[in-house]
Amino acid sequence: MPRPLDPAAEERAWTRLDQLTKPPRSLGRLERIASHVARVQNTDRPEVGKKAVLLMAGDHGVVAHGVSPYPQAVTVQMVANFAAGGAAINQIAETVGAEVTVCDVGVAGDTTGIPDVVHAKVAEGTADMTTGPAMTREACAQAVLVGVRLAREAADAGVKLIATGDMGIGNTTAASALTAAFTHAAPAAVVGHGTGLDDEGVARKAAVIQRALAHNTVSELDPFGILAAVGGLEIAALAGVVIGAAESGVCVVSDGFISGAAALSAIRMCPNARDYLLPSHLSAEPGHAVVLRALELEPIFEFDMRLGEGTGAALAMGVVDAACRVLAGMATFAEAGVDTAEG
Amino acid sequence: MPRPLDPAAEERAWTRLDQLTKPPRSLGRLERIASHVARVQNTDRPEVGKKAVLLMAGDHGVVAHGVSPYPQAVTVQMVANFAAGGAAINQIAETVGAEVTVCDVGVAGDTTGIPDVVHAKVAEGTADMTTGPAMTREACAQAVLVGVRLAREAADAGVKLIATGDMGIGNTTAASALTAAFTHAAPAAVVGHGTGLDDEGVARKAAVIQRALAHNTVSELDPFGILAAVGGLEIAALAGVVIGAAESGVCVVSDGFISGAAALSAIRMCPNARDYLLPSHLSAEPGHAVVLRALELEPIFEFDMRLGEGTGAALAMGVVDAACRVLAGMATFAEAGVDTAEG
Repeated sequence: MPRPLDPAAEERAWTRLDQLTKPPRSLGRLERIASHVARVQNTDRPEVGKKAVLLMAGDHGVVAHGVSPYPQAVTVQMVANFAAGGAAINQIAETVGAEVTVCDVGVAGDTTGIPDVVHAKVAEGTADMTTGPAMTREACAQAVLVGVRLAREAADAGVKLIATGDMGIGNTTAASALTAAFTHAAPAAVVGHGTGLDDEGVARKAAVIQRALAHNTVSELDPFGILAAVGGLEIAALAGVVIGAAESGVCVVSDGFISGAAALSAIRMCPNARDYLLPSHLSAEPGHAVVLRALELEPIFEFDMRLGEGTGAALAMGVVDAACRVLAGMATFAEAGVDTAEG
Repeated sequence: MPRPLDPAAEERAWTRLDQLTKPPRSLGRLERIASHVARVQNTDRPEVGKKAVLLMAGDHGVVAHGVSPYPQAVTVQMVANFAAGGAAINQIAETVGAEVTVCDVGVAGDTTGIPDVVHAKVAEGTADMTTGPAMTREACAQAVLVGVRLAREAADAGVKLIATGDMGIGNTTAASALTAAFTHAAPAAVVGHGTGLDDEGVARKAAVIQRALAHNTVSELDPFGILAAVGGLEIAALAGVVIGAAESGVCVVSDGFISGAAALSAIRMCPNARDYLLPSHLSAEPGHAVVLRALELEPIFEFDMRLGEGTGAALAMGVVDAACRVLAGMATFAEAGVDTAEG
């Protein structure tokens, strides 16, 4: 279980922030981010030197219903692209100095020949959620534990900030189904164009989710059952990353809609994990706003992004890094010999 | 004069962006930033490897009217703090790998003993704008040319992205006066709490600006005259930075309200410079939104910041860097052997 956080550390951080050489609270959101990380790290000198993006890949049986314009083979092809450094996440992670770990937790295809991939395949993709659960409870638990393990290993290696990333053709459908199941939002209110569906495709996707939710008896009292029924292997693993990071006392920056649905799943299973979570951006996918409202958390920025892979989370890591450096590294008025405000 | 930009470079950038291994336009704002820099650099492989924050410091005669809760001595004290690495801008610039250059263009106090400061003092602060122009036209021109020179020197040294930063007790009053003069907004609509004024102080500040605008005959046909009458030495230098960067073909990221007022001054004098400008954040100071509306430009993020020093601009440099790396460094679908969308 993640340790409940001590609010005293955050109070010490605010005391220090207000003594630093700037008008009080003049760094706005940056100060709130810094104080949040201070609470997680239980120090008024937080730091995020070593950063990792944990990118989980998996496939989805529901693609049989035409919920994505891309063929399923793209998942394995993109895993190879991540390994070769050709994807967006590689470029953005390099900008912020984060290492990217790509994990096959459920790709429908052979990734064994691809270098630097963590092979933890639980199944060759999920089953079709419109005719039964996407995963057995056993498979879902295995996937969650893959994420927990990778987060713990990162923490053990000194990583101070973990970003979640996803790859999986069809996974906005699973994220939408999870969001509808957890928040009682109507499927039509949470589905979006994903990687490029037209309006007809969006309507088809909403109908598919409606069928999946009708077929699988899901209860709020059993969040793990919801995750198994209408989630995905990479989403379950990302829920595990959130839980594992929280258990290890490490802040986790969530990416967009898929990562958000994974974080919501994690927090419904393990409410204390919420205190360790920083959502990075508000995705262009409409379901993400529903997820963040349910979590009562504010994203750091809104760039109209909808790619996944951890791209938004990696970008936000730079902001979190800056926020922590401000708190840890700035001089106080007394140290710098700068006069404070009069009156 | 800044070179008018060739839209063909931006079109080539969009062609390439749409061939990269991601759903078209799925990186939203990042793609728009990348295409903008591509147009400025006239290439579909833009890069922002070397980054500089040009931080201009100056004082303001108008502080005699109690428009800031901080004593004027803080300007010179903060210059020493920048040099010692104790300020917020030092920490944030380090996060994004930018070098900070601090320039005394008009500090009312001796900075000669402070290491690593560019000494280009035009005057010991401006005159009181409520009884005459803040600067003579000659002094204002000298200050503008200091900024032009520093921007050119940065460009000659290989800097690909310049951030503007300011330090000057009382300079939100000058920025508010400039904004009111350039946009015809009422002083009360552009003044804010600055570094921490109470409501009475804000009303006093608006009245001071009203007096300054009444006393100085300012005409839209003479933007340079407006800058001299109600601007500041560091603001004039920052206007020069914008012009010098644009003339050198370098993108400039503007910080908050002070930098915004400087950029507005620059662009009223030299309209082509607008194409080279990327506003970083929307400041908590209400006048900044008025400036950005007048420029018809969108900030990259809104973090409720109101510190200055280039802090928001430096943060945004990380985003611009990521955007350019995405465009320059990602693999295309063909290169990576990834299938494109069907249908």
